[in-house]
Amino acid sequence: MTRIAYLNGDFLPLDEARVPVMDRGFLFADGIYEVAAVLHGRLVDNAAHLARLDRSLSEIGIRNPHTAEEWERLETELAERNGLKEGLVYIQVTRGVAERDFSFPKDEVAPTVMMFGQAKSIVANPLAETGAKAITVPDLRWKRRDIKSVALLAQVLAKQQAAEAGAAEAFMIEDGVVTEGSSSSVFIVTKAGALVTRPLSHALLPGITRAAVLALAEETGITFEERIIAADELPEAAEAFYTSASAFVMPVVEIDGRTLGDGKPGPVARRLRELYFAFAEGRH
Amino acid sequence: MTRIAYLNGDFLPLDEARVPVMDRGFLFADGIYEVAAVLHGRLVDNAAHLARLDRSLSEIGIRNPHTAEEWERLETELAERNGLKEGLVYIQVTRGVAERDFSFPKDEVAPTVMMFGQAKSIVANPLAETGAKAITVPDLRWKRRDIKSVALLAQVLAKQQAAEAGAAEAFMIEDGVVTEGSSSSVFIVTKAGALVTRPLSHALLPGITRAAVLALAEETGITFEERIIAADELPEAAEAFYTSASAFVMPVVEIDGRTLGDGKPGPVARRLRELYFAFAEGRH
Repeated sequence: MTRIAYLNGDFLPLDEARVPVMDRGFLFADGIYEVAAVLHGRLVDNAAHLARLDRSLSEIGIRNPHTAEEWERLETELAERNGLKEGLVYIQVTRGVAERDFSFPKDEVAPTVMMFGQAKSIVANPLAETGAKAITVPDLRWKRRDIKSVALLAQVLAKQQAAEAGAAEAFMIEDGVVTEGSSSSVFIVTKAGALVTRPLSHALLPGITRAAVLALAEETGITFEERIIAADELPEAAEAFYTSASAFVMPVVEIDGRTLGDGKPGPVARRLRELYFAFAEGRH
Repeated sequence: MTRIAYLNGDFLPLDEARVPVMDRGFLFADGIYEVAAVLHGRLVDNAAHLARLDRSLSEIGIRNPHTAEEWERLETELAERNGLKEGLVYIQVTRGVAERDFSFPKDEVAPTVMMFGQAKSIVANPLAETGAKAITVPDLRWKRRDIKSVALLAQVLAKQQAAEAGAAEAFMIEDGVVTEGSSSSVFIVTKAGALVTRPLSHALLPGITRAAVLALAEETGITFEERIIAADELPEAAEAFYTSASAFVMPVVEIDGRTLGDGKPGPVARRLRELYFAFAEGRH
């Protein structure tokens, strides 16, 4: 089956989807992206992803070229054309094509809109059974991490460090504090049993899965705290896990080579993973 | 005359130069760039630009696909094919095309190499006669600004703020200190007559024009200090100017709406601009 992408109004084979070298996404990372999971052929929590897309675009002054309804129609058609039952739909919007100049193009330019799908096993993810390893790395990113921009080089380098260490994720540390994962939100459960994640600010992305997990915790009577997590709380935690659109809720059993608890996914992470699946599958 | 770009081994019309949407430059800002001036058909200080390109690529683990000699041949051919006598040659190298995944591609992937030229008046630049306006903005960038990456969204937003304020450049301020311009190095001359620029570190780009200007100052007996410049020194300065491959030495006569000195380009900036032109034109 030919993999189909979407580019500026057209569905076309991914191999043929190309953008001009003068696209500001390519020259300046002047663009925004979103990733939503597809489960049993259905987009997961998509309204929240599209709301964040709209906010990110607005923060950097790119006109959102589509309504949420239009986006969802395009994403659904993309998933259908790719026979995508389980995986991800990726959206990228850049400021468009113009002569290279740092400031925004003076003339109105159409944003570039690009989408593709990625098949991926989300339900049957062996990593969730064994639990993932994480490392900590310095957070090198810019100061507006609440904007989901394609300026991702720091995240690329962090994830590569993790990969080289045989880990699945890098937790980023700044001023002695855990900001978030290189492509995820970080949670811990303290030995005292408190579920903790960092409050939102410009320092981290407002994770869509993070928000859903907090709502599910609230509804099911799992108490949580939104507060700063010190880096030196990590090895002392009873549990840790990270959340993202593709990993859902991923238990962490080792950080920087130190085993957490008994080295198996903890009960809070497992419970929240179950709850999130029920939510994602519409059983909730 | 058709504008000609270079892409992965081929010279082709710029309008036809396209990269796959899965290029990591487009998806992750996973790439490096350089810009060298062309004056009277000759590349200016190009060996230094190519050395910085090599260092930037090495810092993020991208293989430099060409020797300095090969780069210079390609740049020269590009300038010739475009009849470029005065302007810029732009080089971009990305990690290449691969399935989207933050960590580096597991299989060897060829870097994407792209170049184009931009005609620009460098000698007859009216802004250098009147002097430029600058504003100050918070420095939002990542922590490895010594790497000349295409993750430029913070610089784009800074330059756009400058443009909206009717200014040519934005000086970026962090912790009360001037880091650099959004696409330039910053110098001041204090009322006591000291020429000052910030010392190199991970906090700023090692400007090629900055280095040449310091060397010219040294040779001609203009003393200078490399030290931190406090943001509140700016309005008190006798002169300010910025340097870059395209602006050369650009006098600044107004910062955040406050006039510097008598509102005209200062003698040190004018002298260094002359010296730099002599150097760039090979008269030095």
